[in-house]
Amino acid sequence: MTFPQVEAFRGGENLIRVVGHRGARGVLPENSMIGFDFSLSIGVPLLEFDVVLTADSVPVITHNHRLHAPTFRDADGRFLVGEEPKVSSLTVEQMQQFDIGRLDGHSAYGRRFPDQAQMDGVRVPTLMNLLELVDDPKYRDACLMLELKSDPDLAHDAVYRQNFVGRVLQDVRAKGLSSRAVLHSFDWNLLEECQRQAPDMPSSYLTQLPDNADDVGEDSSKEVCPDFRGRRDEIPKLVKEAGGALWCPYFADVTAENVALAKKLGLCVAVWTVNEHEDIGKMINLGVDAIVSDYPGRVQRHLSDLGIRWSAIH
Amino acid sequence: MTFPQVEAFRGGENLIRVVGHRGARGVLPENSMIGFDFSLSIGVPLLEFDVVLTADSVPVITHNHRLHAPTFRDADGRFLVGEEPKVSSLTVEQMQQFDIGRLDGHSAYGRRFPDQAQMDGVRVPTLMNLLELVDDPKYRDACLMLELKSDPDLAHDAVYRQNFVGRVLQDVRAKGLSSRAVLHSFDWNLLEECQRQAPDMPSSYLTQLPDNADDVGEDSSKEVCPDFRGRRDEIPKLVKEAGGALWCPYFADVTAENVALAKKLGLCVAVWTVNEHEDIGKMINLGVDAIVSDYPGRVQRHLSDLGIRWSAIH
Repeated sequence: MTFPQVEAFRGGENLIRVVGHRGARGVLPENSMIGFDFSLSIGVPLLEFDVVLTADSVPVITHNHRLHAPTFRDADGRFLVGEEPKVSSLTVEQMQQFDIGRLDGHSAYGRRFPDQAQMDGVRVPTLMNLLELVDDPKYRDACLMLELKSDPDLAHDAVYRQNFVGRVLQDVRAKGLSSRAVLHSFDWNLLEECQRQAPDMPSSYLTQLPDNADDVGEDSSKEVCPDFRGRRDEIPKLVKEAGGALWCPYFADVTAENVALAKKLGLCVAVWTVNEHEDIGKMINLGVDAIVSDYPGRVQRHLSDLGIRWSAIH
Repeated sequence: MTFPQVEAFRGGENLIRVVGHRGARGVLPENSMIGFDFSLSIGVPLLEFDVVLTADSVPVITHNHRLHAPTFRDADGRFLVGEEPKVSSLTVEQMQQFDIGRLDGHSAYGRRFPDQAQMDGVRVPTLMNLLELVDDPKYRDACLMLELKSDPDLAHDAVYRQNFVGRVLQDVRAKGLSSRAVLHSFDWNLLEECQRQAPDMPSSYLTQLPDNADDVGEDSSKEVCPDFRGRRDEIPKLVKEAGGALWCPYFADVTAENVALAKKLGLCVAVWTVNEHEDIGKMINLGVDAIVSDYPGRVQRHLSDLGIRWSAIH
């Protein structure tokens, strides 16, 4: 089965795709409408972002299962202190009381993004907000790499998985955008549920070897990702067998061997999260299809210097 | 005389202003509409940019008097080679045949901006394009630091100066924006002409000591700027005597003494072009009013960590 949205992520002769990670986290507040709009405006129509369900079952765009203290401020403009509330315990209205426009520069997480613009009055978007943006005819090329964030406390629960996937698909279908989204997760059980409910949509398998360090200040994915220790070069085969159309490895896990195998199997290879020029160069040399980055402009700059395109039309 | 637009650039208690240099040159193509829109969208309403006159007397926004080879591509997508044509020899229609959406990464100039997004189909804006953007009610806080670029071949010619200033003022007045622009130049004769034609608008004096190096790959301003060698700490006095409301020194020329003198004289001090965190920190410590940067988001990030505001309203 050929999915048009998978082809949108596929590289080719002198062509490597660029994917904006959480919009453009290096430049603008992560998982914000202004970040998505920036990425689309600079000609990076492929958007990666994270979806979690609120207490009132609204798919919202945020990375962690709990409100992330270094990026969430209360009505008084203070970053959260103490235990972070779970997204699943708050309604969408309660979520949107918080301001996600700044980073706490005194946190380890905040220090990672020294160039990010700081704003006030930025709210957690719903999935529907983003679907409405890309439904604008000027963004008809936009495709969504929609990450379903599996709550480690509930990942074992089939009813939770069924409901989570069902609500996400309901929104995507309501806007008629199922041919412009890939369903993306570290949780292979959740992707199985996606395939059951949406055989018309491609699955994108995220992987990270357990010996690679987690990103500072973020939820770990290792709890919900299968353990591929010692099987690095077999991962594409397992992704293919599970029904994947895209393989999305952590960039340090990629080798000439596993990229070659993935391509032989027809998988599209999108690596994350590639932020340094040196690493961007390595990924280009390895011949990946797509580069997911917090700095999509930086990746364009690197590709442009090499005369490599990131869109089929220029 | 108090000018509201000068107060928009003035710092204060726990307040330092941020000015987007050529839009946001570190992030997006310089002197482009998308760059101006970015700066405004992140809450940086103060825009610095450069104005030159075309052969058909249209004020256009571009830095050099000649088309800048590392940023101008022809209809075939190639960066210019050979002698750069003068802006004054081309009509606005001819200017807008060129694409300014990318940087030549193989040039010394291009290497300075490794994160700049690369785009196709970006055109030199006219001054009127920008005036129309800031006339949008959502950008009612926007103020313009409008640099009049003095052509060294013509700077001695009073008729040229009269015509250049006249055309710029004609556009600003046509949009009713004279209370939201400062007239900014290295050329003190040109600023004298501005004061003659527009006593209702403030002058902003750019200065750079001759022993500081020019920026790589850019037109030098030294030909049209008075030589202040050995008089570093007197510059504010000379600016004040010439009728200045703002003093805009190269950031390396600033000292505790000359900032104190400028403030005593009631001048607003806006330093350029401050791109590195270390230099941003130094300027904050020196107590300047405003920081002009290619990375306005980075300056916000720095100020936010210190609990310093960049807008009077947050």
